[in-house]
Amino acid sequence: MYNDLINERLTHLRAAMKSNELDYYLITTADYHSSEYVADFFKAREYFSGFTGSNGDLLVWEKGAALWTDGRYFLQAEEELEGTGIALMKMGEKGVPSIEEFLEKNMLPGERLGTDGRCIPISRGNRLTDTLSKVNKKACADAENPYECSLIWDVDLASAAWNDRPDLPSEKIWFIDSSNVGESRAKRLERVRDKLKAEGAKCLVLSSLDDIAWLYLMRGNDIEYNPVALSYSIVFEDKALLYINTDAVSASDVEALKTDGIEVKAYSEIVNDLKTIDEYIEADGAILADPDRLSYALYMSITGCGDMKNRLVLKTSPTVLMKAVKTATEIENERTAHIKDGVAVTKFLYWLHCLREDPLFVSGKRVVTEMEAAEVLLEYRKAQEDFIEESFAPIVATGAHGAIIHYEADVKSNAAIEKDAFLLMDTGAQYLQGTTDITRTFMMGNASDEMKKHYTAVLCGNLELADAYFPEGTTGPNLDVLARKALWKLKLDYRHGTGHGVGYLLNVHEGPQNINQKGRLGRLGTAFEHGMITSDEPGVYIPGKYGIRLENMMVCIKSGESEYGEYFGFDTLTMVPFDARSISAEDMSEYDIELLNKYHRKVYETIAEYLTEDERAWLKAETAPIAKKL
Amino acid sequence: MYNDLINERLTHLRAAMKSNELDYYLITTADYHSSEYVADFFKAREYFSGFTGSNGDLLVWEKGAALWTDGRYFLQAEEELEGTGIALMKMGEKGVPSIEEFLEKNMLPGERLGTDGRCIPISRGNRLTDTLSKVNKKACADAENPYECSLIWDVDLASAAWNDRPDLPSEKIWFIDSSNVGESRAKRLERVRDKLKAEGAKCLVLSSLDDIAWLYLMRGNDIEYNPVALSYSIVFEDKALLYINTDAVSASDVEALKTDGIEVKAYSEIVNDLKTIDEYIEADGAILADPDRLSYALYMSITGCGDMKNRLVLKTSPTVLMKAVKTATEIENERTAHIKDGVAVTKFLYWLHCLREDPLFVSGKRVVTEMEAAEVLLEYRKAQEDFIEESFAPIVATGAHGAIIHYEADVKSNAAIEKDAFLLMDTGAQYLQGTTDITRTFMMGNASDEMKKHYTAVLCGNLELADAYFPEGTTGPNLDVLARKALWKLKLDYRHGTGHGVGYLLNVHEGPQNINQKGRLGRLGTAFEHGMITSDEPGVYIPGKYGIRLENMMVCIKSGESEYGEYFGFDTLTMVPFDARSISAEDMSEYDIELLNKYHRKVYETIAEYLTEDERAWLKAETAPIAKKL
Repeated sequence: MYNDLINERLTHLRAAMKSNELDYYLITTADYHSSEYVADFFKAREYFSGFTGSNGDLLVWEKGAALWTDGRYFLQAEEELEGTGIALMKMGEKGVPSIEEFLEKNMLPGERLGTDGRCIPISRGNRLTDTLSKVNKKACADAENPYECSLIWDVDLASAAWNDRPDLPSEKIWFIDSSNVGESRAKRLERVRDKLKAEGAKCLVLSSLDDIAWLYLMRGNDIEYNPVALSYSIVFEDKALLYINTDAVSASDVEALKTDGIEVKAYSEIVNDLKTIDEYIEADGAILADPDRLSYALYMSITGCGDMKNRLVLKTSPTVLMKAVKTATEIENERTAHIKDGVAVTKFLYWLHCLREDPLFVSGKRVVTEMEAAEVLLEYRKAQEDFIEESFAPIVATGAHGAIIHYEADVKSNAAIEKDAFLLMDTGAQYLQGTTDITRTFMMGNASDEMKKHYTAVLCGNLELADAYFPEGTTGPNLDVLARKALWKLKLDYRHGTGHGVGYLLNVHEGPQNINQKGRLGRLGTAFEHGMITSDEPGVYIPGKYGIRLENMMVCIKSGESEYGEYFGFDTLTMVPFDARSISAEDMSEYDIELLNKYHRKVYETIAEYLTEDERAWLKAETAPIAKKL
Repeated sequence: MYNDLINERLTHLRAAMKSNELDYYLITTADYHSSEYVADFFKAREYFSGFTGSNGDLLVWEKGAALWTDGRYFLQAEEELEGTGIALMKMGEKGVPSIEEFLEKNMLPGERLGTDGRCIPISRGNRLTDTLSKVNKKACADAENPYECSLIWDVDLASAAWNDRPDLPSEKIWFIDSSNVGESRAKRLERVRDKLKAEGAKCLVLSSLDDIAWLYLMRGNDIEYNPVALSYSIVFEDKALLYINTDAVSASDVEALKTDGIEVKAYSEIVNDLKTIDEYIEADGAILADPDRLSYALYMSITGCGDMKNRLVLKTSPTVLMKAVKTATEIENERTAHIKDGVAVTKFLYWLHCLREDPLFVSGKRVVTEMEAAEVLLEYRKAQEDFIEESFAPIVATGAHGAIIHYEADVKSNAAIEKDAFLLMDTGAQYLQGTTDITRTFMMGNASDEMKKHYTAVLCGNLELADAYFPEGTTGPNLDVLARKALWKLKLDYRHGTGHGVGYLLNVHEGPQNINQKGRLGRLGTAFEHGMITSDEPGVYIPGKYGIRLENMMVCIKSGESEYGEYFGFDTLTMVPFDARSISAEDMSEYDIELLNKYHRKVYETIAEYLTEDERAWLKAETAPIAKKL
């Protein structure tokens, strides 16, 4: 099957490459802010390759093209790339080179690589530049730099070759009341400035949208599901500049910002301001910028200004850790949000229960699709007060679809919910009181012994991680084994992390803490702190058969100290029952059973009052204490 | 109390500093090979400070002196430094600068720091050089390098100011038969050369004594408890040079080495050979050396030779991983060694049991000291075939002594074993079939409830870690929590690692794998491989009261695979019962009880036949299955 559409688009792109004298062109997934999810305007990689996953880089050259993506998307990418002639490069698989390795091997000295430098962070730009240096150096070890290193970072061929490219988003911007987060904008700015002072820096250049949203108590709608607005900011000692679509901010908000010493400027002005940043700060001050978030193009603006190259300090912004550590008010609100979300999801599970009991469903006469089920769940959520939107594209996957880790039903794939099959649902919501993310896997009929064994292993992992109790300094990679060991005993595993940080009415994926096996680049990473909210989501995926994932949100809580320092535990926020029909008490230890019964008791006590009588009766049965047979 | 002896020695040292125009002099713990333990010749830091711990650096200047050591030695160092005027710098404590930070703060531009560059590795030398650069740069930011960076690395003031310095050791050297390790010297050289070729290197400079011993199947006795010989080696593509005390090698061994293409040269010749290393290798080959093991002095020899500075590649030697992964023969022999050692230690425990039951001991009329007990254990070990020596200085610590993590009884501290107190014994042996390291904690009477609770938590940690089952890629910091979590639940912890690698008839501490919380410099480190032998030794220390540590050796074994790769488990080598009197079944899960009963059954089945009838009856009772009260 030949994909005409994609091939035609690639032809246009190659023509644009030719007229720009480029031998290779790289299209990354990112927007100008290294966001994980991006607005349609930035979906050039999807436009030119057809691959819709949330992570993937497309490299195009005269005679070919290749797409790099990670393990979550191998199956999906294989399908979507069919007929495009684009080779799939499975990142992390043995023998598969990284883009940099590929370029090093294939590029010839003097060849030119182009990319939109606004869509790669500094660190990536530096890696590409290093690669090109190696290409040129390797081929001419004896000569003295015969070729210039040729990363052409100021070409936007996506615009050139993409006729009907959507506009940049420009949705309305709104501001949260400080009582909602328990901290004023002024206080947050003060904390950031204290930190800058402690590090000897005069200013901070912010590009990550959720950090800016956090700092200014600002929310937008420029990226689907992520309540952020396209923006930049520079924080100085005595003032702050906010670069944003000025049409989207009300005059009264502009005034309110001014009161806090924040000047609103047009989004695009950041470029020129950085080119003349030396006019803003004293001669001996350092500038702080995050090498993984600020774009390479803006980096070139800064470093082109006077002696700024020497004064630029590249490190993670202090806002990242501050944002991750929720305030007491934010924690309390998140509890409220999770109760509301728990009620909505539990009502939906009861609806699913009724469906699986419905003789018409059992006989195959009643058909409900994955997308219809997602709609039903959304309706239950909409009925909750202060619901804003979903926090990410819902995953509702029946049977074998559940084994595709990031399955998203669309018109083409949308399947009828199967009976005697698992239905995996990974969904979440934005409420005024916070962000939720929950996965439940529900048996639409009767589970086989193997299904129960697998479900129970995932469940034990979820429960044992949530029960962790640990001293200060402990990181995610130290705890990850607790979620995996029940699966490992069955020689199973899952090819994704166990937990990610979650924002407060912000992005559903938020650093810096996470729970996984390898850390980031082999490093242990950020230690847990009181107030961090993290997911707990082990899973198991049997290709062609089913997927099981069970995900709760947990907030890290200080509880006790000793001569060994502060001790912490997790408090589970999510209030939704597990699937009684899929649990095998015989495969659980007494300890696991105790954890489950305790959690189920708490779920019932917390949400029962918000349910109808039928729902409540069902929840009572669903959460009844289990025990091993004697 | 004024310490005349140390003050006199420091006076001599300061005089030598003056005549060498040195403002600061640094004496490290290491020998010329960055060994963990060193021969008496190298104990200059102990000689000039009085501090006898295995880790500590002494810095001396005109008006003062300071000693840096780690948490294991704070108590001991405080005692030993009393009256010397040497300040104790507690490494890792808040607000305590590292030596480099101290120098950066206190040194003046142009001042000279001296050290014996043979006693610091390359990485340390580079850190010191960086520090001195900063000192000079900071003070004269505007001037252009007004001072030379002054690390004087070729002064040995220890010899100059230490009159009765012992001689370099020169013990006999012997060779293991290849059948003992299941691999010939030629085969090991071939594996190293294959690895060098794969990395594009032409030669490897080896300085770490255990790597050289491993490679050439050579053993010595130059460092107490470590069967290694002072030596260097350079491995080329077509030959190898072994630098060693030539008097200590027999003529027939020299001939045998020659057959394998290994030329024996005098120990000191390495210096000149490295200065002319370009005569040995082709113009474009790289030299490999380990930055944490090769001395800074030898580094200066290499880098002073032609263009060698550009050709030197600093990375961990390939022998490190090869040595850690034991051959099938080595694993089998280690099993044998641990059975013999298990028999000896169990006989000793029975002897202790008889002692605790002895009415004269109970009434206080029979006194047995820690050192006497260590002697008894040594006698039991000596009775085992192929016993060579102890593998480290035995720790036999009664009551509160057990809380001093690296307690070593000497004439001064040697105490009578207390009744109703824990006796902590961390000891080990070298057999022709391998190295052992075992800790048992034995109740000399009756344990209080708190003692039992603590003992049982340590025991559960030991058992659960040993029961780990995990896929390839898993590292020590991923598993460490399994050993600690029972203690964490009690808000307890231990300030040491959980496990270290162990050599084969070699050093009792051997990298690269280890099991701890933080990794090395925050990195996850080396993944487990089939054949790695690692200790499993959680503990708890109640200052002034008691210490409990339980240590077994485990070998990592491949057992099964799936689509997620190879799976591994640990097989416990140590065959010695835990202390039935200190175990509280009520504080254990059913799972823990099952693990204990399984281990005890195996211990009994494995060693019972080598015991006397009395010992066997006692072991039977000691290892009887336990259960919770119904």
